[in-house]
Amino acid sequence: MNFCSQCGSTVRFDIPEDDTRPRHICNSCGVIHYINPKVIAGCLPVYEDKVLLCKRAIEPRNGYWTLPAGFMENGESTRNAATRETLEEANARVSNLQLYTITSLVPVSQVQLIYLAQLDDLNFSAGDETEDVQLFSEEDIPWKELAFQTIRNALKFYFEDRKEGKFPMRHVDLETPAGQYVDKSIQSI
Amino acid sequence: MNFCSQCGSTVRFDIPEDDTRPRHICNSCGVIHYINPKVIAGCLPVYEDKVLLCKRAIEPRNGYWTLPAGFMENGESTRNAATRETLEEANARVSNLQLYTITSLVPVSQVQLIYLAQLDDLNFSAGDETEDVQLFSEEDIPWKELAFQTIRNALKFYFEDRKEGKFPMRHVDLETPAGQYVDKSIQSI
Repeated sequence: MNFCSQCGSTVRFDIPEDDTRPRHICNSCGVIHYINPKVIAGCLPVYEDKVLLCKRAIEPRNGYWTLPAGFMENGESTRNAATRETLEEANARVSNLQLYTITSLVPVSQVQLIYLAQLDDLNFSAGDETEDVQLFSEEDIPWKELAFQTIRNALKFYFEDRKEGKFPMRHVDLETPAGQYVDKSIQSI
Repeated sequence: MNFCSQCGSTVRFDIPEDDTRPRHICNSCGVIHYINPKVIAGCLPVYEDKVLLCKRAIEPRNGYWTLPAGFMENGESTRNAATRETLEEANARVSNLQLYTITSLVPVSQVQLIYLAQLDDLNFSAGDETEDVQLFSEEDIPWKELAFQTIRNALKFYFEDRKEGKFPMRHVDLETPAGQYVDKSIQSI
């Protein structure tokens, strides 16, 4: 950030009065510009004994498989964001959403929510940011071609939990930079 | 937003190519400025049969009682944010955090996470944004002087759940403007 989005003047990066962290502060109008973590919401859609994955057609991780998920927008709930992203990326309709994983991606300042969901029908297809959409059985999951650690975690949790028939929410903090993520702390409730 | 924070030129509010929503787009360098929901994290600190509340010394809802909570910062986990806010607002140390409520505040584009937590000791006091900090028994909770619907919900859930000795996570969407919030959808898992 170089300029104030309110008045167009230059900003400095300094600790405001009554604060403990440096922020971008306008040198003219004094507005403080806060930059906060973003929320990513998505689904793990299940149809009979299979799960739905999308092959990414965009960076990052173009060509790798992922769950349908994306940035939450202003003016929607986390559940609506997860449902919308599933529709946009896989043209797929889901229901019975249950919060399944919540992950803090600390180095990239993101919070990711994945909902376990029922895929309503087989009328799915690749959206604009997707190259391919397929249903996978556990033995066919492309583990080495998954896009993100959070997606590996969600799928790993799901196939473990399915044996027990119980799907407790998992709360994970990932503290290591992307590509080397380690599960520091997992809370099951 | 009136000016591009990257180059200082004017912005227009228009739907970018390959998008479905209007965004602030720089008229000069073309950067798209996304504005997304913010995360609020906090704790419901419990000590024996009492809960810790803070009397707000800042707007909004100055003078009303709340749980220690605030905006999550970049570079921290949701749990660390909840712990930090409890320390900043109540000079209080907590442990054994368990995610208890997740609420989408749709009209204000916020996602609030409240953790049930154990208050470690009685060495608490008012932080800079707090007028007073007290422990309250159930019969003494100032229900009519609580700052927010989300705080009423968390306390209501807690005293209900305490009877059963089980504290399932509650997932709430609040769709109505502030002050008139109605619980549209509550998911207990």
